[in-house]
Amino acid sequence: MASIFSRIIQREIPSYFIAEDEHCYAFLDINPLMKGHTLVVPKLEEDYLFDLTEGELTHLTLFAQRVAKAIQSAMNCKRVGVTVIGFEVPHAHIHLVPINTTSDINFANPKLTLSKEEFVAIAEKIKAAFK
Amino acid sequence: MASIFSRIIQREIPSYFIAEDEHCYAFLDINPLMKGHTLVVPKLEEDYLFDLTEGELTHLTLFAQRVAKAIQSAMNCKRVGVTVIGFEVPHAHIHLVPINTTSDINFANPKLTLSKEEFVAIAEKIKAAFK
Repeated sequence: MASIFSRIIQREIPSYFIAEDEHCYAFLDINPLMKGHTLVVPKLEEDYLFDLTEGELTHLTLFAQRVAKAIQSAMNCKRVGVTVIGFEVPHAHIHLVPINTTSDINFANPKLTLSKEEFVAIAEKIKAAFK
Repeated sequence: MASIFSRIIQREIPSYFIAEDEHCYAFLDINPLMKGHTLVVPKLEEDYLFDLTEGELTHLTLFAQRVAKAIQSAMNCKRVGVTVIGFEVPHAHIHLVPINTTSDINFANPKLTLSKEEFVAIAEKIKAAFK
């Protein structure tokens, strides 16, 4: 069965879309730690990040760098932190989180509750900054 | 002034060494969340990960993948998690943490206290598994 991320990529499930290319897809995490918290996933359904081939991992990383620069430009944050854990969904994904302190990227923190309008506005801002 | 990581790379400060190449250096975090918690740093003293050039970031990522595979092989863990925060030391560094649950990579957790002998034994195991 397709992972929830593959179903998002195939537009079977809606997402707050940021950017995509042939191999990668970026969209807002709907349980964000911070406004602008984004997931970057390979379109290939690989469970574990480090099982990607060198070529796949390189492409994903450079795509994530472009997304991180867009987040940094769009959101008011000191930098963009990175976390890869991956037990929740068996499809590799990189969390990009706008942070101002170390504790902003603590996954034990309560998640933000945002309205649909807030998610749409954030996604539009980051999308507009994506190069 | 050289960062603490540059001084470690230059052997001015000792570290529990794992691996290095021309551009990267890996060593045990001395305040580990889990046994085998490793730092991977570029030898270039760049503060922020996403300010690395595409070539530098690619090289660092593929080096980190090799280190992660060695950690996975040497330590008893489900996978190796990744975190990049970076407010502590102004020299980009990737945390690679052997994890079995999401909470294993929570930086608010108390750090482990290990003896010098334990650090040496862990570093030797990971080093032996590095390819």
